[in-house]
Amino acid sequence: GSSNLGGFLEANKDKLKADIVLVSDTSMISLETPSIETGLRGLAYMEVEVTGPNRDLHSGVYGGAVANPITILAKMIASLHNENNHITIPGFYDQVMELSAAEREELNKAPFSLEDYKKDLEIRDVWGEKGYTSLERTGIRPTLELNGIWGGYTGEGAKTVLPSKAYAKISMRLVPNQKSSDIARLFEKHFLSIAPDCVKVKVTEHHGGEPVVTPTEGEAYRAAALAIEESFGKKPIPTRGGGSIPIIALFERVLGLKTVLMGFGLDSDNIHSPNEHYGLENFFKGIETIPLFFKHYQKLKSKQA
Amino acid sequence: GSSNLGGFLEANKDKLKADIVLVSDTSMISLETPSIETGLRGLAYMEVEVTGPNRDLHSGVYGGAVANPITILAKMIASLHNENNHITIPGFYDQVMELSAAEREELNKAPFSLEDYKKDLEIRDVWGEKGYTSLERTGIRPTLELNGIWGGYTGEGAKTVLPSKAYAKISMRLVPNQKSSDIARLFEKHFLSIAPDCVKVKVTEHHGGEPVVTPTEGEAYRAAALAIEESFGKKPIPTRGGGSIPIIALFERVLGLKTVLMGFGLDSDNIHSPNEHYGLENFFKGIETIPLFFKHYQKLKSKQA
Repeated sequence: GSSNLGGFLEANKDKLKADIVLVSDTSMISLETPSIETGLRGLAYMEVEVTGPNRDLHSGVYGGAVANPITILAKMIASLHNENNHITIPGFYDQVMELSAAEREELNKAPFSLEDYKKDLEIRDVWGEKGYTSLERTGIRPTLELNGIWGGYTGEGAKTVLPSKAYAKISMRLVPNQKSSDIARLFEKHFLSIAPDCVKVKVTEHHGGEPVVTPTEGEAYRAAALAIEESFGKKPIPTRGGGSIPIIALFERVLGLKTVLMGFGLDSDNIHSPNEHYGLENFFKGIETIPLFFKHYQKLKSKQA
Repeated sequence: GSSNLGGFLEANKDKLKADIVLVSDTSMISLETPSIETGLRGLAYMEVEVTGPNRDLHSGVYGGAVANPITILAKMIASLHNENNHITIPGFYDQVMELSAAEREELNKAPFSLEDYKKDLEIRDVWGEKGYTSLERTGIRPTLELNGIWGGYTGEGAKTVLPSKAYAKISMRLVPNQKSSDIARLFEKHFLSIAPDCVKVKVTEHHGGEPVVTPTEGEAYRAAALAIEESFGKKPIPTRGGGSIPIIALFERVLGLKTVLMGFGLDSDNIHSPNEHYGLENFFKGIETIPLFFKHYQKLKSKQA
């Protein structure tokens, strides 16, 4: 996420000429089951501020008679998913590309154990949009997640305050053909529309990114698959990544370049989380595989020529 | 709020013998309209912790497939008030003493301008339990307020985390004859019962207090009223305070002492809020009035003897 990267690409188009972009910022299923991500979700990231009274109030003197912005924010957030965990923003799903039954079947062939997933996260039950598997929920479906919330007294012990303001950071992962700026506008419009008269609401947008699907045909993908097969001893499986790398869509739009996502991370690396780590074995496998990509890409390109 | 005060009172009963307790920790309507609070709300103060996955997750990799504790906490909080802003905890209102129509009429005679109230707080609309006025909502009705909420990323800019935990501080103001520990148990039972399987919920209780109604008959109240009349030049109006002073109920239960709440603060003092202040005129009026209380109390007591 960077507001200046698009401008930089525009200004340096000539210097950035290339055949293909190779990005190693993605994950594989495991070292035993190598995979290549062939899509990434986009992102729209919003921050909301709900203001009740113009100052923090004593919750005894005013409580019960003045809207508490935390209570109102909670009610607004609660309404963003319905009982099937569909997102309730009008128009949110209008541009979502639905996959065919065959494509969904293919996607669900990736090795996945719901029991292991729950055990790893220590949860009794998963959560998500009704009618879709966990792989589909993170791969081909858009989401709305609360990334942060705060308001009032958050220290040790008790303080009886009715706060003036409450805040939340809310991001949406997008899939083809949703557009980040369109979704941000839909969110803003809807969120303002559900605010009751007893509060004021402000919505601001952080940097977003567009969803991408990378080609699984052509020399670049084939070179990556051959490189992984040579170093891991197994053909890689194509998967859909749930994360976002906003620059990929920019590379395509501004430079006209396609990307191959040949990453060596694992979902268990705790990315964006305490104790984030990256295995030495993954690191060395990456060092081994990347030169093989260049070897195979060179061969396939010269064959074509 | 103190866990040790009850034990201290028990241990020092003899040293704490008195005729009456005079407390100056309450407000009056204004210097032009002096008043005496004749009741205080009680308090039950809870802290809740909602745990989703066992660690913070990347909201792209896991988002949409794993319960977000902020989203779930928001849904749980949203359900605590129904569409009429009644509190939904089963049994919550069972012990609430309903006032007669005449008592409610009397209470609503206190000077109160809804327009000034909204203007002072810069709100377009008030909020509260359907069927009750603002004075009733803060004086004779119990409430449930969010005093704090936090979880996930709360710093500048954007971070795409699906947090492991979300927290809230939730307090309830109580009226006669609700009992703080009973309400705390009802809250805990209800809050655990509405937690879905995809999260774990922990509820802990902070120090609470019992509601009180102080007598408006007897020498002590009459002495306070005469003292105020002498210093302010006007008879004080009895009002119901929305706040809580847990020690008042303890004084009565442990020491058998009644209390007079003769305070000189104003609701506009921003108590428990930034820029809390106390007017010099209120301070000097208090200095002037308190000795007058002793004068009148002494006179009334000796008349009685």
